[in-house]
Amino acid sequence: MARILTGIQSSGRPHLGNILGAILPAIELSKNPQNESFFFIADLHSLTTLKNGKERAEYVRAIAATWLAFGFDYKKNVFWRQSRVQEHTELAWYLNCFTPFPMLANATSFKEKSEKLADVNAGLFTYPVLQAADILLYNANIIPVGKDQKQHLEMSKDIASRFNQLAGEDILTLPEPQIDERIMTIPGVDGQKMSKSYHNYIDIFLPENELKKVTKKIVSDSTPLEEPKDPDNDITFKLYSLLASASEVEAMRQNYLNGGYGYGHAKQALFELMLEKFAEPRRIFNYYMENNDELEGILAEGEIKARAVAQQTIDKVRSVLGFSS
Amino acid sequence: MARILTGIQSSGRPHLGNILGAILPAIELSKNPQNESFFFIADLHSLTTLKNGKERAEYVRAIAATWLAFGFDYKKNVFWRQSRVQEHTELAWYLNCFTPFPMLANATSFKEKSEKLADVNAGLFTYPVLQAADILLYNANIIPVGKDQKQHLEMSKDIASRFNQLAGEDILTLPEPQIDERIMTIPGVDGQKMSKSYHNYIDIFLPENELKKVTKKIVSDSTPLEEPKDPDNDITFKLYSLLASASEVEAMRQNYLNGGYGYGHAKQALFELMLEKFAEPRRIFNYYMENNDELEGILAEGEIKARAVAQQTIDKVRSVLGFSS
Repeated sequence: MARILTGIQSSGRPHLGNILGAILPAIELSKNPQNESFFFIADLHSLTTLKNGKERAEYVRAIAATWLAFGFDYKKNVFWRQSRVQEHTELAWYLNCFTPFPMLANATSFKEKSEKLADVNAGLFTYPVLQAADILLYNANIIPVGKDQKQHLEMSKDIASRFNQLAGEDILTLPEPQIDERIMTIPGVDGQKMSKSYHNYIDIFLPENELKKVTKKIVSDSTPLEEPKDPDNDITFKLYSLLASASEVEAMRQNYLNGGYGYGHAKQALFELMLEKFAEPRRIFNYYMENNDELEGILAEGEIKARAVAQQTIDKVRSVLGFSS
Repeated sequence: MARILTGIQSSGRPHLGNILGAILPAIELSKNPQNESFFFIADLHSLTTLKNGKERAEYVRAIAATWLAFGFDYKKNVFWRQSRVQEHTELAWYLNCFTPFPMLANATSFKEKSEKLADVNAGLFTYPVLQAADILLYNANIIPVGKDQKQHLEMSKDIASRFNQLAGEDILTLPEPQIDERIMTIPGVDGQKMSKSYHNYIDIFLPENELKKVTKKIVSDSTPLEEPKDPDNDITFKLYSLLASASEVEAMRQNYLNGGYGYGHAKQALFELMLEKFAEPRRIFNYYMENNDELEGILAEGEIKARAVAQQTIDKVRSVLGFSS
């Protein structure tokens, strides 16, 4: 039985790229009866870049509502808000003292962020240590990550090894990254990778008229309506292909190749497909966004399950380090 | 009414230098009815340099026993073990995200420690942020510190200001350092400043025969017994002067000046004076070291009081940052 751990930063509302690229595959993985999934909303991490409290609170709700909207089974698995389990920051402090300063200073992601961001704070610097605490607290053995996170996972293993060496026994489980080489890149409305920071994302939970507006913004070339078009070089077609059935995709491909079918038609078809395909998730999402108490109740239930596991680990760590009474 | 906060790192058993230089003045300050003293054992901080859990646990007990041995009124004041109040590390994480990376990188104490120590870890680097959390959690307004800690206090103020600016109100109290310029330097047995790291300290809680041995190690010159001696350049005399009454000091001074009085006599007098003067603290210290449950009970009582204050602050901080549910 594998324990899978995934954290989602609450630095924005989940968009189509997050949903297709991360959330749906993770939910799929969690359905395997051999697996036990620990999914948490990494709100503590989001403070490194997002300071606005109102936005964070809204994003946390939106993320939780999205997971539930796509059918994540929070009863079988464990689903909680990171900041509500104080053992995360407690373990992070202990692990700080087992993390060589140069290891963090040389981390690629810190160097990249330092160059890009105006606010280079100590949270950004010790980010990988909090991440190690998130993982090690739950003795997670499989961590599905993108390639860019591989170095952080190596750090977690390194920090855990140093602690285990002092303890003289394997108290912390060394996590293994599960790197999905096939990870889909979902194009944004401008054709670049869909990303909050590029402002090119599609928020599928928008009200209909707004969702329609965003769909219309998808960039296309200037081929006139009556001429044939190249489906393989068009963003609307790519997005449609990610959502539609094989026969629908084939029909759309023929429309493109035949001519007499405009990009406006394709965008309208994509818009209608999203409404149809995400009708149920949109309903559930809106339900939870309007029924905050229920959402909080679900997270509170997960918090109790998460804390029970976290406390077992922290008790062992405290004992090794002489912090127990 | 001033709230005074002091943390004592649990990286060793308190020695005569700690007692005369820090513990007794702090206890004196705590007796002022205008003051409310928050004293904590900074065991989380000690992990930056001390990894051995058994030693840490013993040092924590010894520090607590020492404060009680010298009459610290734990009922009037607040006295607890830092690691037992999880709000310290939680607030430290939040504050990390308000601490500019260069501020820590340029801190004098980090630079000095990095050059001296083999284990330069991330805990050592973020040490001033945990210290800021310790202070700000309790809205302490007066922090008695040595000159070497002035820069850390400035950092605490800076971090608190950044947070308050975001909050739009003064949620965190800006602490003021109270720098005692007169701070006594207590000589060790070799004449250098008494310090654990110089291995020149006198542990007044040692069994009699061991305390006698340490006293005999005090360095003196080779003036023969019968000749007059210079009291003002002798370590034994200096230590004796710090403990004896004015008339006893004067009598000892005459003995030195008259000659016929050896350093061995002076050391024996110092040894006897320590036994006499510290008879009651030695008894209480040993009592608590042998009655660990009682000691833990006292710390647990303080923990409850400390946590009640800490939780008020953390609730406000969470609310500003969007971490409350």
